[in-house]
Amino acid sequence: MDDIEIDEVAAPELDDPVLIEGLPGVGHVGKLAAEHLLEEFDGELVRRVYTTEFPPQVDVDGDGVAELTCAEFHAVETDGADLLVLTGDHQAGSNKGHYTLTTTFLDVAEEFGATRAYALGGVPTGELVEKYTVLGAVSDGDLVEELADAAVEFRPDEPAGGIVGVSGLVLGLGERRGFDAACLMGETSGYLVDPKSARAVLEVLEEVLDFAVDYESLEDRAEEMEEVVGKIREMQDGPAVPDDDLRYIG
Amino acid sequence: MDDIEIDEVAAPELDDPVLIEGLPGVGHVGKLAAEHLLEEFDGELVRRVYTTEFPPQVDVDGDGVAELTCAEFHAVETDGADLLVLTGDHQAGSNKGHYTLTTTFLDVAEEFGATRAYALGGVPTGELVEKYTVLGAVSDGDLVEELADAAVEFRPDEPAGGIVGVSGLVLGLGERRGFDAACLMGETSGYLVDPKSARAVLEVLEEVLDFAVDYESLEDRAEEMEEVVGKIREMQDGPAVPDDDLRYIG
Amino acid sequence: MDDIEIDEVAAPELDDPVLIEGLPGVGHVGKLAAEHLLEEFDGELVRRVYTTEFPPQVDVDGDGVAELTCAEFHAVETDGADLLVLTGDHQAGSNKGHYTLTTTFLDVAEEFGATRAYALGGVPTGELVEKYTVLGAVSDGDLVEELADAAVEFRPDEPAGGIVGVSGLVLGLGERRGFDAACLMGETSGYLVDPKSARAVLEVLEEVLDFAVDYESLEDRAEEMEEVVGKIREMQDGPAVPDDDLRYIG
Amino acid sequence: MDDIEIDEVAAPELDDPVLIEGLPGVGHVGKLAAEHLLEEFDGELVRRVYTTEFPPQVDVDGDGVAELTCAEFHAVETDGADLLVLTGDHQAGSNKGHYTLTTTFLDVAEEFGATRAYALGGVPTGELVEKYTVLGAVSDGDLVEELADAAVEFRPDEPAGGIVGVSGLVLGLGERRGFDAACLMGETSGYLVDPKSARAVLEVLEEVLDFAVDYESLEDRAEEMEEVVGKIREMQDGPAVPDDDLRYIG
Repeated sequence: MDDIEIDEVAAPELDDPVLIEGLPGVGHVGKLAAEHLLEEFDGELVRRVYTTEFPPQVDVDGDGVAELTCAEFHAVETDGADLLVLTGDHQAGSNKGHYTLTTTFLDVAEEFGATRAYALGGVPTGELVEKYTVLGAVSDGDLVEELADAAVEFRPDEPAGGIVGVSGLVLGLGERRGFDAACLMGETSGYLVDPKSARAVLEVLEEVLDFAVDYESLEDRAEEMEEVVGKIREMQDGPAVPDDDLRYIG
Repeated sequence: MDDIEIDEVAAPELDDPVLIEGLPGVGHVGKLAAEHLLEEFDGELVRRVYTTEFPPQVDVDGDGVAELTCAEFHAVETDGADLLVLTGDHQAGSNKGHYTLTTTFLDVAEEFGATRAYALGGVPTGELVEKYTVLGAVSDGDLVEELADAAVEFRPDEPAGGIVGVSGLVLGLGERRGFDAACLMGETSGYLVDPKSARAVLEVLEEVLDFAVDYESLEDRAEEMEEVVGKIREMQDGPAVPDDDLRYIG
Repeated sequence: MDDIEIDEVAAPELDDPVLIEGLPGVGHVGKLAAEHLLEEFDGELVRRVYTTEFPPQVDVDGDGVAELTCAEFHAVETDGADLLVLTGDHQAGSNKGHYTLTTTFLDVAEEFGATRAYALGGVPTGELVEKYTVLGAVSDGDLVEELADAAVEFRPDEPAGGIVGVSGLVLGLGERRGFDAACLMGETSGYLVDPKSARAVLEVLEEVLDFAVDYESLEDRAEEMEEVVGKIREMQDGPAVPDDDLRYIG
Repeated sequence: MDDIEIDEVAAPELDDPVLIEGLPGVGHVGKLAAEHLLEEFDGELVRRVYTTEFPPQVDVDGDGVAELTCAEFHAVETDGADLLVLTGDHQAGSNKGHYTLTTTFLDVAEEFGATRAYALGGVPTGELVEKYTVLGAVSDGDLVEELADAAVEFRPDEPAGGIVGVSGLVLGLGERRGFDAACLMGETSGYLVDPKSARAVLEVLEEVLDFAVDYESLEDRAEEMEEVVGKIREMQDGPAVPDDDLRYIG
């Protein structure tokens, strides 16, 4: 196998599509958001990207059939912009692999005519989030205004540790080849899969790309997560019965 | 040395041979199973595969002679199908190495005319196993029925973490070049070398490849392992003398 | 992206410039010293070096604009020698990467006509430093005298573990291609960012390269660090009130 | 820099020289033994081998001059066989690097006409060694007898974990290109640098290669180590004064 192999699954004509990257990361915010777009808009699989940078792994589907792990591009038509949505289960396995792989991802996006890219992700706050702010970073200062209008916050020199992984390179390498690229980072505790943060990120996309999406299934997942959080708290704190009552019983 | 070097030791004519992969993994199930086939059927060494992906290591034999670590293919003639059995002491040392090495293994298998492959392994249950179920995954849905008839279980989306290493890629890369490939995973605790799980896996192979094999030596190893387990339990629990007796002495 | 990409930002004529390397390391001594030179002398950015050896990362500036992580060369004109100052946020990510990257750095320096190099860094003492000695190592014995005259100490076989990273290779690879190279290592505790040690290193450079630099901003940072150290001590020891007083209150 | 660079320092004519490998390993037995040969016989440096597999490091000598880390070949004329002694401070940094580097080492040895090789090392026993046995392994069964006559022990399938690193590959790769290669492993606790074990290994070499060497300096190092061991024991056990005496004083 070559270091990277691309399966061309379909070749639909897209109208100035926008690359949306949602690989795994903090709180799985980007991945949840990208997968939600695929579910809601019935995305069409157009490319599979296999690479020796991914773990040597197959995933088994509901019928017991194994699929070699890969990243996938789906074409998505919304009522607004056309999207080219990149999802998968892995980042690259090495520094160099991240550069090589992101270069490939941008090659594919260019092939479909994309000149804009949004890298979706989470930014950890270390505490439970009450208000789901979306933090932004851009490849070019001209892109700030539109995003700020969509309630994206720009904080000088944040996130402090920079943006790492494919999301960071979509900006860094994208800028070097002329993409207008932005990273949208939903605030999230960093401890849990966070569908609410994914929704906050998608609401920004809705505004800047002029489409509308339903959030029911994402809300369901958010409720499941809150039940999980509730159970964890219960286990830590004991049952939610006040001490006084217990004494009274005794 | 090249990254991969293949020594051609023998070139027997094989009749539609089936690749059987048994490299080290969970419970050494695959390795035990494959080595048992070699012992029982007097396999003929046909290829040695050396690679810089293996540790820089020689193993010393009974006469003090050192052998560079390698993977080996043996040709095995059974009363049923001809087998091409792949064994060794190591998996690859990197993600990319797993892809490269499995590609080489499939090249060798093709050279001998193989179009079918069984990757043997174990799947950890985390507890001592009473009933030795064999879990299956396939490169193509058409292969499910025959294996299900041989009591292989197919559970949707299991194993949850996918199948990693050479076994996973025998399916994933095998499928991409036209192999009919299946992975047979014997349930095993994951804590111990497990000859009983290896037997369960071999019994599936016997049925689908129409051969018969004796299990005496594997049973001997299973008994040795049970003695080990017994001793571990004793050390944890104290001697197996009932408390009553002790009181009586006291 | 290639493994290394160099952006040529400017091409000023420099007069026998001296390479000054100040990448991150012990106490950030080299990095602080090199960055102080850039601040004080208004260095002109001449080259950006991108490499797949760096983490896949962008850093976000004060306006929310992301920049792909890189190393930078600035041309600096002092009242003495012309300098070519190398700074950045990362060392290479692998053994081989250090060799490749330092080779590139020396290529760039040669391109500007440099034949001399100073690698700046810190050497850890494991305890708070009272007197900021600068330890030296050279690519050629002829370079010892001048540095010893500038109060650099040469201690046989020290530092005991050798000099690792880009600084070490500026000497080791530099020597192999004809550079007169020296490493100036400021003693530092190893636990904290150390602006005082950086000043000690710069004072050596001032003497051997015949320039003068102001230290006010570095002194400010040193004072900030001392406040930090003071707070740490307070937290460890409790408030700096004598025990007697406490008894008196009691 | 290339992945491997060889400096040709001298080209003496050697008479059927024997490669002696003594890189760092268990108890530094091989390294001590090889370096002792260089000291006692005034070896002539013939090759330096630089590689990106070594750490990016320079070592500083007694005059403050830095040398890029490398492996060195010295030609040594004894009253018996001519030797080509390989020493250095590092093994390779990766699996593949071990293979590449050992290939280079054997290339150099062949260039000087060597067809025999002894890889020197230690084998850990886990306890303080009373009798310094030397364990052997060979590339060819024909080599056993001569070594057994020199008191080398051959134990079936030992060492259990095989022989790893450059020593292992001198046998494994050496065999594949026609070298008569043996590994001589001095038993050693594994916890300490062990000059006595190095002497045991050298005494085997003396016998099979028909030379004589003085051990005074190695004995001095052995005595130093025993003082260290004595001090460690004292620290663990308290002073070696019997309790009775202490009571008497009290």
